[in-house]
Amino acid sequence: MDILLQYVVKSFDRSTKVIDFHYPNELLQEYNWELADQPQNLEEILMHCQTTLKYAIKTGHPRYFNQLSTGLDMVGLAADWLTSTANTNMFTYEIAPVFVLLEYVTLKKMREIIGWPGGSGDGIFSPGGAISNMYAMLIARFKMFPEVKEKGMAAVPRLIAFTSEHSHFSLKKGAAALGIGTDSVILIKCDERGKMIPSDLERRILEAKQKGFVPFLVSATAGTTVYGAFDPLLAVADICKKYKIWMHVDAAWGGGLLMSRKHKWKLSGVERANSVTWNPHKMMGVPLQCSALLVREEGLMQSCNQMHASYLFQQDKHYDLSYDTGDKALQCGRHVDVFKLWLMWRAKGTTGFEAHIDKCLELAEYLYNIIKNREGYEMVFDGKPQHTNVCFWYVPPSLRVLDNNEERMSRLSKVAPVIKARMMESGTTMVSYQPLGDKVNFFRMVISNPAATHQDIDFLIEEIERLGQDL
Amino acid sequence: MDILLQYVVKSFDRSTKVIDFHYPNELLQEYNWELADQPQNLEEILMHCQTTLKYAIKTGHPRYFNQLSTGLDMVGLAADWLTSTANTNMFTYEIAPVFVLLEYVTLKKMREIIGWPGGSGDGIFSPGGAISNMYAMLIARFKMFPEVKEKGMAAVPRLIAFTSEHSHFSLKKGAAALGIGTDSVILIKCDERGKMIPSDLERRILEAKQKGFVPFLVSATAGTTVYGAFDPLLAVADICKKYKIWMHVDAAWGGGLLMSRKHKWKLSGVERANSVTWNPHKMMGVPLQCSALLVREEGLMQSCNQMHASYLFQQDKHYDLSYDTGDKALQCGRHVDVFKLWLMWRAKGTTGFEAHIDKCLELAEYLYNIIKNREGYEMVFDGKPQHTNVCFWYVPPSLRVLDNNEERMSRLSKVAPVIKARMMESGTTMVSYQPLGDKVNFFRMVISNPAATHQDIDFLIEEIERLGQDL
Repeated sequence: MDILLQYVVKSFDRSTKVIDFHYPNELLQEYNWELADQPQNLEEILMHCQTTLKYAIKTGHPRYFNQLSTGLDMVGLAADWLTSTANTNMFTYEIAPVFVLLEYVTLKKMREIIGWPGGSGDGIFSPGGAISNMYAMLIARFKMFPEVKEKGMAAVPRLIAFTSEHSHFSLKKGAAALGIGTDSVILIKCDERGKMIPSDLERRILEAKQKGFVPFLVSATAGTTVYGAFDPLLAVADICKKYKIWMHVDAAWGGGLLMSRKHKWKLSGVERANSVTWNPHKMMGVPLQCSALLVREEGLMQSCNQMHASYLFQQDKHYDLSYDTGDKALQCGRHVDVFKLWLMWRAKGTTGFEAHIDKCLELAEYLYNIIKNREGYEMVFDGKPQHTNVCFWYVPPSLRVLDNNEERMSRLSKVAPVIKARMMESGTTMVSYQPLGDKVNFFRMVISNPAATHQDIDFLIEEIERLGQDL
Repeated sequence: MDILLQYVVKSFDRSTKVIDFHYPNELLQEYNWELADQPQNLEEILMHCQTTLKYAIKTGHPRYFNQLSTGLDMVGLAADWLTSTANTNMFTYEIAPVFVLLEYVTLKKMREIIGWPGGSGDGIFSPGGAISNMYAMLIARFKMFPEVKEKGMAAVPRLIAFTSEHSHFSLKKGAAALGIGTDSVILIKCDERGKMIPSDLERRILEAKQKGFVPFLVSATAGTTVYGAFDPLLAVADICKKYKIWMHVDAAWGGGLLMSRKHKWKLSGVERANSVTWNPHKMMGVPLQCSALLVREEGLMQSCNQMHASYLFQQDKHYDLSYDTGDKALQCGRHVDVFKLWLMWRAKGTTGFEAHIDKCLELAEYLYNIIKNREGYEMVFDGKPQHTNVCFWYVPPSLRVLDNNEERMSRLSKVAPVIKARMMESGTTMVSYQPLGDKVNFFRMVISNPAATHQDIDFLIEEIERLGQDL
């Protein structure tokens, strides 16, 4: 306990490092990690815990901006400890009575917030957004061709899914796994802000239909991973309605904005979706993992996935069997992911999540306002950030004098990786970078960390300049 | 903390109830579980924790025998708390340096124990055995027809998977999801002990080939869910070799026996498998979830699943990229499941797991010896249990005098559900029951709980008789 609490305290202390970085081979040799025949004593076990935490990333550190999931909420952490202590499985009411009820209450609340009448519909907490998106694809296919469950893809025409070129790679991963194939995922063009262009969507749907293929799913994104863009959901909904296609919204990253009266307009149209992925472990700061798939039509998940295992879902139990929700999952055993979200929600209230989200978006705007006209920075796209993603290049002095030609691009592409490596070696802060399309490596700042302040944003800028000015 | 530790202490106390059972509607009304706009204070939050634990099942209770995963290991629990505190994701070395290394070390050790030379191969911790089995099916298909990734199932011939009629339902679930279809999963006959009959396997493979179908996977089971049966892996391996079919072993439940010098012979032949599912969260008592898929051929998982997301798996990072293992997963974010297993292994040593497993099997044999000749009990199958599964009917006095006809069967089928309902209402112990094939509802006792003793087994028998004698 002391070891864990010390770590928590350190995580929030700006004077400690975000990471004590070592290269993989170094770290392998630094310590004896091997598993042996003989037991070790308590003292040794405690030392392993200390060592593990010494080399871990402090994801709760106010200057850790590397991923969409950052921060450490103390109520969420306590709830996760309780979950571990209860150590049960979600498949039946029999062995998880409270957690099954809390899942029911929480998913209903999330559906109300999405805007489905009375919070009706279905849903599940799944192990991450990629699996939630895969569920959506699976259910959409089943809705159109229920025979696929028994007969497989051989019995159905060629199915086509549509998603934007900025969407998450899990759509392709899902299509590969489900036997649909990545070639059948059509990537729709985006505008310069990373939003799907509806006219291109309609054009590609028509093109697919002309080839005799069957469009079965459009996955719009609410909060893309890199730009934080929101696809125009209302326009997408109109197109899906017109062509009778399942509309999925991947709001893994953007879903949190539904908690904010100020920002939820960015998801207008989400209420028309057939299914929504929403990861409270991202923008809402719930400990990992907590991802929900929400489905408008009730019963579909169950028909799609159920296999009636008689040793789990006995039909002659003494309680209402509709609470045995396990057979609608792809998983058999399913980790309890709901309690940390539920308890945080009780502790913060919807208004507490709202305040957190508004603050993170305000910080992103603060960053944007500082760097948009600052010497040495170029924005990857124009305009205020819609989410907390702020994408930019830092241009070191030696490059500022160069013409905008290939040599400059090539040199610029090497800047972010070097600064990032130096950041990790000095351990002061962490932020992500990547190339995208024809754009060479740029920084993607995201803010979901409740501990972050204006001073931490200022620090990040100073740090990038300190580490990159000689490049 | 006090609340959690009190719960742990109570869990181990035989005088407390395993469960304080309430019907779903009762429990919904007993307490206000709803989510609201306004925050609640710390006192209220602590009360929610207490209430949640009050109604939870004590899965660590010495008399909780309901599932394959039971018990509460204190080192495992501490490790899970540490995992929650570190709150990170498995996708890259960058953000999970220690955990990525520990996954590498632990999976390698597990492959060594399986018997693959030098522990070579590949693997991943996945969210449960059903997903691990789905991975195996996915990889087996990709190995035979790599074009399926891009082209989907339409581009490949009809694929057939084989598994026994006693195997886990996740094989069918996986086939439905992957677009193979449940009709293409052929269930092979079992002998009276629940073991796959190799001659029937070969017959069905030939039959499929004659129809022009392509057998691509045999999933043998090492430790079936209900009977605890071990398929004859050597004979299955010979058949797989002869017909060039991927051999998967679902050792989710039975894998733990590999840690025991006394019992590992039951899995002879597992070293010839192409892939193995092994869930340390079952027989090895690791907190939920901890399931491994192990693959003999290295690199296949990566080729099968990778999508090269440029924002996660940057190719110009400053460290050895082979430690960024996230792209071989179906998931994007992946929970850290390795640390609790690794820390328990350090604390117990391989010999500690061995002692635990030997003890559980000894307890199962103790139970079997008591009831095999005891009045009022009938064994579902003859012979000593191979795993800790002991399957039996309790026959109340009123039924003992009846002839073995349909009426008796019909009455007998109602005995286990009533006893189980009474068990839950009195909260004294929990054990599972189910029908199987033409066998009406019988009890399936399983022992994986490290806290269970001979006295708890005696208690179970007395309790069944106390609750069922009037039926």
